Amino acid sequence: MDVPKRPLGFALIQLRLAGICNTDLELQRGYYGFSGIPGHEFVGQVVAADSPSLIGKRVVGEINLACGQCASCAAGMGRHCETRTVLGIVKHPGAFAEFLTLPESNLRVVPDHVTDEQAVFVEPLAAACEILEQVSLPPAAEVAVLGDGKLGLLIAQTLLAHGALVSVFGHHADKLKIAQRAGASIDASPTTRFPFVVESTGTANGLRQAIQMVQPRGTIVMKSTVHDQVTIDTAPLIVNEITLVGSRCGLFDPAILLLSTGKVDVASLLSAEFPLSQAPAAFQEAARRGVLKVLLRNDQAS
Amino acid sequence: MDVPKRPLGFALIQLRLAGICNTDLELQRGYYGFSGIPGHEFVGQVVAADSPSLIGKRVVGEINLACGQCASCAAGMGRHCETRTVLGIVKHPGAFAEFLTLPESNLRVVPDHVTDEQAVFVEPLAAACEILEQVSLPPAAEVAVLGDGKLGLLIAQTLLAHGALVSVFGHHADKLKIAQRAGASIDASPTTRFPFVVESTGTANGLRQAIQMVQPRGTIVMKSTVHDQVTIDTAPLIVNEITLVGSRCGLFDPAILLLSTGKVDVASLLSAEFPLSQAPAAFQEAARRGVLKVLLRNDQAS
Repeated sequence: MDVPKRPLGFALIQLRLAGICNTDLELQRGYYGFSGIPGHEFVGQVVAADSPSLIGKRVVGEINLACGQCASCAAGMGRHCETRTVLGIVKHPGAFAEFLTLPESNLRVVPDHVTDEQAVFVEPLAAACEILEQVSLPPAAEVAVLGDGKLGLLIAQTLLAHGALVSVFGHHADKLKIAQRAGASIDASPTTRFPFVVESTGTANGLRQAIQMVQPRGTIVMKSTVHDQVTIDTAPLIVNEITLVGSRCGLFDPAILLLSTGKVDVASLLSAEFPLSQAPAAFQEAARRGVLKVLLRNDQAS
Repeated sequence: MDVPKRPLGFALIQLRLAGICNTDLELQRGYYGFSGIPGHEFVGQVVAADSPSLIGKRVVGEINLACGQCASCAAGMGRHCETRTVLGIVKHPGAFAEFLTLPESNLRVVPDHVTDEQAVFVEPLAAACEILEQVSLPPAAEVAVLGDGKLGLLIAQTLLAHGALVSVFGHHADKLKIAQRAGASIDASPTTRFPFVVESTGTANGLRQAIQMVQPRGTIVMKSTVHDQVTIDTAPLIVNEITLVGSRCGLFDPAILLLSTGKVDVASLLSAEFPLSQAPAAFQEAARRGVLKVLLRNDQAS
């Protein structure tokens, strides 16, 4: 693998540890029409940069590369820049490689006491934190999290850290136990309605289930992208005046804080680790039903 | 037609003028499983009540009859009371009759200078006002209203009165002209994206169209109930972090103010008037394509 060219304002980063996300599996299945190097969850070390202070630092990086000049960027919504590229997802080579590049402004230095195994969760944890940027939760809000996968478990912990009363619904006893240890109530299916429901099942049925379990004037946060058309009955959304909020990537700083203060535990979400050279085997493992986070380690990193 | 029994706390109201709504047409087609007297848009005169001050007054009435005791009612959401009945829609005889009853607390006295022909629009206009209770519009917000029917035209006027820059999209030149006279931009289909989109087409396709024309982080207000399942691609909702807000009935007081201050003109929305005795013909007329509001007048009223 060649060392990628570092454009002005970019840092060259040597990968230390990367995480495989469902999106990576979907890229592999041909969604998004991306054919380059995947990977957008990573922690690495800066080996070259315009800013001398960055060199040698352990960093994570926001994955959206914004143009900085369009109306969205001017409005502070770089993550919604129309011409953005996205690390390992849209037209920018990703993190499953010895080296990657990112704009220096995308990087966040990882505090020393945050391990690589924690830092690699910053990106998905930021996506969980995004919910709190979008929805204002009252004290002790009752929130249902639908889905006990990686994202659901991160969301549950993030909301618990925020003081919410969280109920996680899923069908994997071992995963539900992780949520329970973090302080969530757990169950297979809901028997009451909730003022807030977070849909993170990754299935088309999740949204329909969320609509059935949200209270009048309640809020559904839509976290899981599915690639099928979803058929819903919109009448209850209108009659019960439900709010649906689509939610994607989040800011990194709150996620780093949640990890550095120990408010979110990610050790329990680790399923397996592979060397970068065995990425195909790692992908196979990550695609197995019931597996949580699979990591790729760059053995060349110090 | 017998005079209905007046329960304690209720007023007996003699109908003066009623409006036919799309919901009435759908009731007739068998939706909602309601088989009684329809009608929920009305202005009438109180002929009997517990409160002597109400007797003889010209009134309009909020259509949701709440229990006053459940969690929703305690939270000030009587319009979402789980055991509510709804005038002319759910288990409470409606306004297309010589007499009707409503709880006195549902009634609002109509100011003298507001005509019957205006007052009969308070209920649908309140539904338009509900949008502003749910969504906080910044100054000079750019709002697209999808649909140029009765509801779309009331919504457009309500938002214009609120200072929004409103574009109405529809396919009826005569109706679009009403929106234009009120100060809206008009067009057949959108060429740009909007931060706010109100879906009031009454069709399943409206929501799909709204999703295509809303800006990233924008808001879609869902105003039109459709009775088909709606198939949508949820991915853009999540990727672009769109908020969807289901919106139904609203408070009457702001609607009465909009009419009494002349900020909303409803005269242009009147299509035809029939005596109450010719309700079947009125329904036929209301169901004709392109027709706006059809009224039923009680000739027995003074």
